[in-house]
Amino acid sequence: MAKDFPSRADNYAQWYNDLVIKADLAENSAVRGCMVIKPYGYAIWEKIQSVLDRKFKDTGHSNAYFPIFIPKSFFSREASHVEGFAKECAVVTHYRLKNSPDNTGVIVDEEARLEEELIVRPTSETIIWDTYKNWIQSYRDLPILINQWANVVRWEMRTRLFLRTAEFLWQEGHTAHATREEAITESETMLNVYADFAENWMAIPVIKGTKSPAERFAGAIETYAIEALMQDGKALQAGTSHFLGQNFAKAFDVKFLNQDNKLDYVWATSWGVSTRLMGALIMSHSDDAGLVLPPKLAPIQVVIVPVFKNQEQLSVISNVVKPLKKSLEDKGISVKYDDRETHKPGWKFTEYEFKGVPIRVIIGPRDVEQGTVEIARRDTMEKEVLQLRDLENKVIHLLDQIQKNLFDRALSFRESNTYRVDSWQEFKQVLETTGGFISAHWDGTPETEEKIKEETKATIRVIPLNNPREEGTCVYSGKPSSQRVLFARAY
Amino acid sequence: MAKDFPSRADNYAQWYNDLVIKADLAENSAVRGCMVIKPYGYAIWEKIQSVLDRKFKDTGHSNAYFPIFIPKSFFSREASHVEGFAKECAVVTHYRLKNSPDNTGVIVDEEARLEEELIVRPTSETIIWDTYKNWIQSYRDLPILINQWANVVRWEMRTRLFLRTAEFLWQEGHTAHATREEAITESETMLNVYADFAENWMAIPVIKGTKSPAERFAGAIETYAIEALMQDGKALQAGTSHFLGQNFAKAFDVKFLNQDNKLDYVWATSWGVSTRLMGALIMSHSDDAGLVLPPKLAPIQVVIVPVFKNQEQLSVISNVVKPLKKSLEDKGISVKYDDRETHKPGWKFTEYEFKGVPIRVIIGPRDVEQGTVEIARRDTMEKEVLQLRDLENKVIHLLDQIQKNLFDRALSFRESNTYRVDSWQEFKQVLETTGGFISAHWDGTPETEEKIKEETKATIRVIPLNNPREEGTCVYSGKPSSQRVLFARAY
Repeated sequence: MAKDFPSRADNYAQWYNDLVIKADLAENSAVRGCMVIKPYGYAIWEKIQSVLDRKFKDTGHSNAYFPIFIPKSFFSREASHVEGFAKECAVVTHYRLKNSPDNTGVIVDEEARLEEELIVRPTSETIIWDTYKNWIQSYRDLPILINQWANVVRWEMRTRLFLRTAEFLWQEGHTAHATREEAITESETMLNVYADFAENWMAIPVIKGTKSPAERFAGAIETYAIEALMQDGKALQAGTSHFLGQNFAKAFDVKFLNQDNKLDYVWATSWGVSTRLMGALIMSHSDDAGLVLPPKLAPIQVVIVPVFKNQEQLSVISNVVKPLKKSLEDKGISVKYDDRETHKPGWKFTEYEFKGVPIRVIIGPRDVEQGTVEIARRDTMEKEVLQLRDLENKVIHLLDQIQKNLFDRALSFRESNTYRVDSWQEFKQVLETTGGFISAHWDGTPETEEKIKEETKATIRVIPLNNPREEGTCVYSGKPSSQRVLFARAY
Repeated sequence: MAKDFPSRADNYAQWYNDLVIKADLAENSAVRGCMVIKPYGYAIWEKIQSVLDRKFKDTGHSNAYFPIFIPKSFFSREASHVEGFAKECAVVTHYRLKNSPDNTGVIVDEEARLEEELIVRPTSETIIWDTYKNWIQSYRDLPILINQWANVVRWEMRTRLFLRTAEFLWQEGHTAHATREEAITESETMLNVYADFAENWMAIPVIKGTKSPAERFAGAIETYAIEALMQDGKALQAGTSHFLGQNFAKAFDVKFLNQDNKLDYVWATSWGVSTRLMGALIMSHSDDAGLVLPPKLAPIQVVIVPVFKNQEQLSVISNVVKPLKKSLEDKGISVKYDDRETHKPGWKFTEYEFKGVPIRVIIGPRDVEQGTVEIARRDTMEKEVLQLRDLENKVIHLLDQIQKNLFDRALSFRESNTYRVDSWQEFKQVLETTGGFISAHWDGTPETEEKIKEETKATIRVIPLNNPREEGTCVYSGKPSSQRVLFARAY
């Protein structure tokens, strides 16, 4: 399998695409820009969902479900939202097909035209705030803390599996609050939930910050984001949390009686992560031998491969493996025992290596005799022979160690690829050579931001939270600046 | 709340609709036919999903995800499928909006017309079999056992919350097999999974059977179904499992090399349940005081309501309740302690009764002194005062008892509303009075089936599995018949 698989250095984009397809994570479908998420890829997504869902519930949120369609007119209600979202979207205009006159197929029935077109949701603020209007009368109805797991559609011209697809899966939280302060706290809480998840589950170090006005969510007062650095030196936005102020409450006329018995508009937040996280996960850790998965999100944490010549040998090995497997599973570890006779051990080694299974255990007839076993870790490819009786403790310990090592490795990569830059020449040079995060002074104007983007394709990824004040001059315009911000080319 | 709430006898349809809305389960949205599933309703759906998902995985299935859009031409590939599904559906024709010339809103950009229209999936056989084509070469690639949790859209003219909505949530299993026998076994296995879930989790007795040709899924060779009887004497189809033969493999040209090294078409099944189950759940058990939920699917199984006059009393009560709550939760029981001061105890009693919480516990200052507590069960409304120290055992026992009682009650209702009918006059009379299941002879022709439907709105719900052979004459045509089938009016 690894034979016709390109290395990262050869062709990073091709490496990523081939990896996604050959590791059975996802593939392109017959519908332009829409992907099929295959069982192995979906199993990782289910793990992501399950952890996040628990975190959302632990922070007081409930799930609900809102319609996939949004009336076209809803988008025009919030001025900047329509600019950001209503343009590239799937438009439903009819509700019936009929047989074609020549009876060779079906055609759109022109008599079944909708009075008002429906948009397949690109995000749900509008339909949700139209609903919240009926749920909120007084401060006693607040806060509303709701999350939705759903599919959304944004008509992208250039798509890449997981990273940018016309349809993708995500969760979108939509909360309503009585005060500005409470809404801001909510946006920050959810940013921290995302950062905790990225670092402690996905093993991806992230930088928390706010977006520049030009990069804000369409309709937000403030957009918080976590940014990660991929192995090719490009940044990836891994989650956003928006403080929406009273913009959507005003657009949908959602007022409430506050504790002083006065009418006021409701304060809002929204926050989301998507199947894009799969792209971040893949690109952060994987290598030229295929996928590398952090143990906490790996569908299979340990694979046991028997090496045998005949049924008799297999049965001796299985007698040892089966209780071992059960014992590991009882400790919550997911174990696959691949005793298929249709594939050779060597094929299996490559297969599970390519699919990023964190730990591989090999056991043959001589191992059984000697009470030994070989264990290999995917992250470093190190192998070790140990006593069978020590295997269980070793596995438990190693899973933790791999999880930690992946994070440390990604952190160290990011640190050595973050550059403090003070000249325009150096700025361009970093982007043209290694890539990475560039910490540089910016004069704070959208004009400068736009010019930097035009000339280098780099954008301001975040203004880091608790950013130290520092007097300096803008790396592009030379005008005065009071802080450094983080630039990078991005996915 | 119960004041303006109609009884089942008064107006069953209104009772159902008001119940769904007032129990905070779901509501209609701004988009015709699409519902909003509210947090309390969605929490029940999450429980349904979680149990079924476990059952699917235990029977060897994995989840995956396929595109929401299906190219229009795919529907024409399977002749009967297009008749059944392609007609009433949401059609995406454009992929962009633009500002209107007068700048007051957005309009469809006619330049962004799709070359081929896309259909929002009403079911996914076509897109999935188009995908399977690339996954299957030999018998070694089989079986494929995949399930998808997704939203689907069928353009319904008359909609009712949960029972019939334009968009609904469901799961659809799609499996591929090397032999006819294996595919039939799979359809039957999944029918049994559904029946087990309906009876042992939803507490709804169901009849398993096959559909008559007229009621089959569009494209199936055989449709298996489970049918339940609602309290108004109408039947509700609670799940279907289809043996699709080689129809979709032929339509999408999916062949495989079998063990004899010969090319053959792949055998298929599909099976699904939807948010319609919520309607079945509500209608099976609920009463004139509101929702009644089986404990195994209740988001809140026990609510504890303190009765207090002041903070001091509340704090004394809370000291007793908090360890009790924790101890119940440690046993996997979901407990809500509603110590809000903004609502009176009486209001809370009605509220939780209306929301179908299986067990209510009331505790006041005198209870604390005397070491007693009052417990009430929702299904029978019986109350009992017991020693506080006995409460935990009582709750555990009572949850089982309520679960069993709801099933027994529904079963007994169904039994007393199933009629063995031998004359056309009696057939019509049953439908005009009590409703219910009618077991009657049918001559086996679609013509008779159609005429019965025209004259009475009753349809053949199922031909029960293992139906005894019995010579007789058709209740409608008087022609010879070899078995009784089950008729009813249905949702």
